[in-house]
Amino acid sequence: MASDTNRHTAVIHALVESNLHAIVCCSPTSVLLLSGYWPVLGVSVVVFSEEGRVIVILPEDEMEIAQETTDVTIIGYKPTSLDRLTEPIDAITKPLQHVMESLRLSGKTVGVEFNQAMQPASYASSATFQTSLLDRLGDLQPEAKYVSCDSLLGSLKMIKTPQELSLIRKAANIAADGFEEAARQIRVGMRETDVAAAAHSAFSTSTKATGIERSYGFFYCMSGPNSAKAFGAYARTRQRKIEAHDLVMLHANTCADGYWTDITRTYAAGELTERQQAMRIAIEEARKAALEAVRPTAAASDVDRAARRVMTAHGFGDAFKHSTGHGVGFAAANANGMPRIHPESPDILQEGMTFNIEPACYFKDYGGMRHCDIVAVSHDRATVLTDF
Amino acid sequence: MASDTNRHTAVIHALVESNLHAIVCCSPTSVLLLSGYWPVLGVSVVVFSEEGRVIVILPEDEMEIAQETTDVTIIGYKPTSLDRLTEPIDAITKPLQHVMESLRLSGKTVGVEFNQAMQPASYASSATFQTSLLDRLGDLQPEAKYVSCDSLLGSLKMIKTPQELSLIRKAANIAADGFEEAARQIRVGMRETDVAAAAHSAFSTSTKATGIERSYGFFYCMSGPNSAKAFGAYARTRQRKIEAHDLVMLHANTCADGYWTDITRTYAAGELTERQQAMRIAIEEARKAALEAVRPTAAASDVDRAARRVMTAHGFGDAFKHSTGHGVGFAAANANGMPRIHPESPDILQEGMTFNIEPACYFKDYGGMRHCDIVAVSHDRATVLTDF
Repeated sequence: MASDTNRHTAVIHALVESNLHAIVCCSPTSVLLLSGYWPVLGVSVVVFSEEGRVIVILPEDEMEIAQETTDVTIIGYKPTSLDRLTEPIDAITKPLQHVMESLRLSGKTVGVEFNQAMQPASYASSATFQTSLLDRLGDLQPEAKYVSCDSLLGSLKMIKTPQELSLIRKAANIAADGFEEAARQIRVGMRETDVAAAAHSAFSTSTKATGIERSYGFFYCMSGPNSAKAFGAYARTRQRKIEAHDLVMLHANTCADGYWTDITRTYAAGELTERQQAMRIAIEEARKAALEAVRPTAAASDVDRAARRVMTAHGFGDAFKHSTGHGVGFAAANANGMPRIHPESPDILQEGMTFNIEPACYFKDYGGMRHCDIVAVSHDRATVLTDF
Repeated sequence: MASDTNRHTAVIHALVESNLHAIVCCSPTSVLLLSGYWPVLGVSVVVFSEEGRVIVILPEDEMEIAQETTDVTIIGYKPTSLDRLTEPIDAITKPLQHVMESLRLSGKTVGVEFNQAMQPASYASSATFQTSLLDRLGDLQPEAKYVSCDSLLGSLKMIKTPQELSLIRKAANIAADGFEEAARQIRVGMRETDVAAAAHSAFSTSTKATGIERSYGFFYCMSGPNSAKAFGAYARTRQRKIEAHDLVMLHANTCADGYWTDITRTYAAGELTERQQAMRIAIEEARKAALEAVRPTAAASDVDRAARRVMTAHGFGDAFKHSTGHGVGFAAANANGMPRIHPESPDILQEGMTFNIEPACYFKDYGGMRHCDIVAVSHDRATVLTDF
């Protein structure tokens, strides 16, 4: 894929503003941000210099996918082979040393990651270097000064380029196939596991994913009283059988080459009851109010307030137990993702930001309803990326 | 679930042997090892003291699952709420301080994790603290001495207790439903995505998972020339349509409450050709030879040699491109997992170790065949945990 020149320019600008001579990162979302390549196994390192040079050091096994998704400089290393047992941190050292020396970083300021970070599942299993990469950097280039670039990366991740937005939209379009199939199938007597499997199957066999190297995701179904617990920080499918008049919530996190969605729809087994109709009307109005509050320079807290006011007016203020949204795209699910559409948020909206709008209400032992869309801030309003 | 007293005793023994007064860990596989609880979002911390006290500090959202899977002491913390935006590292500090003080760790030696570690996907997205937890520990208890307990944890993870083995076996039994369904469905014209979806669907709706809090997993299908690339460190499903006489490889990583499988079977669309028959016979004989070499005190490299000798005798020495196996259980897939069943492995087998036996052959542009079982070392032989 062609380089994302918007992203490249934004990173250089951020480096210059922060007086950083380079960034060296290994967390997969940051490698993706800085290079366009989303590491599979978590053992890749990206170096981005103030001159705009971008080098990814990765295991040879990942070369093929990397070449399909980025055109930055790639240096492969040999992981464990039949001749020898090699840990990635050792295999990566020589190429990293070479790159560090060629960039002449002695005495320079280098941004690295120290803080907690959410990482979406890039494979069944993936690695974290913990402190070993930072220790190795210190050994390789002891004369460089290593400083945190966590907040710089966080700010960069908030605002998506058009190319990144199009991948999030693509991921959402593929996910739509899963939601549509679930909506068709849901009926009394099905298990939550059946609903989630039907959605996952339709999603993962969708030919809309053609051209995406890695399209996969997670679908979670929570019905009846289980849906009432869905305000927590994670979703969970159980074997419960759907009963008459249950609310049936379907939540998905799906990705297209590292760009993630966070989507929820709530269905019912049969017609909505009067109570459920009231919930639906409140949520629809809250969603509309939140969307209308979205524009560049708006306070994120005002978007939350717009949705919350409607829910309260409908008598569902206490039942709306979480914030109206949070940043989405690089992490599949992150309640603290920026911008935080939260009552206490200090964040100000800017064009290109992507986040959820997820008005909801939850009633213990009865059920929960949530409608979670992904929106992007365009120059004068919200654009819904999950328009299905 | 009742405490695993075998595990508890083994950890205390390891602490005493290593002169550690406590271990403080946050990597999910290590929290699982030390407490029986497998964190969902990666923001839990376990403290294990030399007196055998075990405390897990976790977000309140995870309390319900934790209580179902462990009976160690649990302290919940409040993540971000509507009142305030809180990062996990900040929310965790006060309870951690309390625990550290109650254990009187001032001046004592505390084991922590520094090295690269493979972590299976515990949710769609999960956190790593990177260096922030270690920094915080240093602030909270500057008089303690923090040393690496990475190799201690690695050694402990190698050898499973009977309770852990039974969960791996359970995970394998559930996975079997996925393989059996795929075997029934595979035919010319199906896409790899269809095969993987059929397997995933049968697996994830299996009622064998009853009683497991979290049973989920990943199925990957690689057919024809794509299966020839499957010797790499990760698997990948594409949209390719299966053709007549293709080899169709199905790989799975599945879990039961944090204990993972790593299983491969290879099918054909139709009858095996003569060439494929020859591959199958070699692989079956290599598997048998490897299994016969497994017993406590055997060298892991001899198990590899046993399989490799057979493959070479059949003319497939060069086509068997990877080691015969690696440790399995806590990480879904880790080519460096101990014990390493590899030509250069220094590892010696012990009772309770679990690893793969995965003889295979790969021919570029044609196809690959692999049969990957999980085995446990019992007192005098190998027990196959994937006997389907």
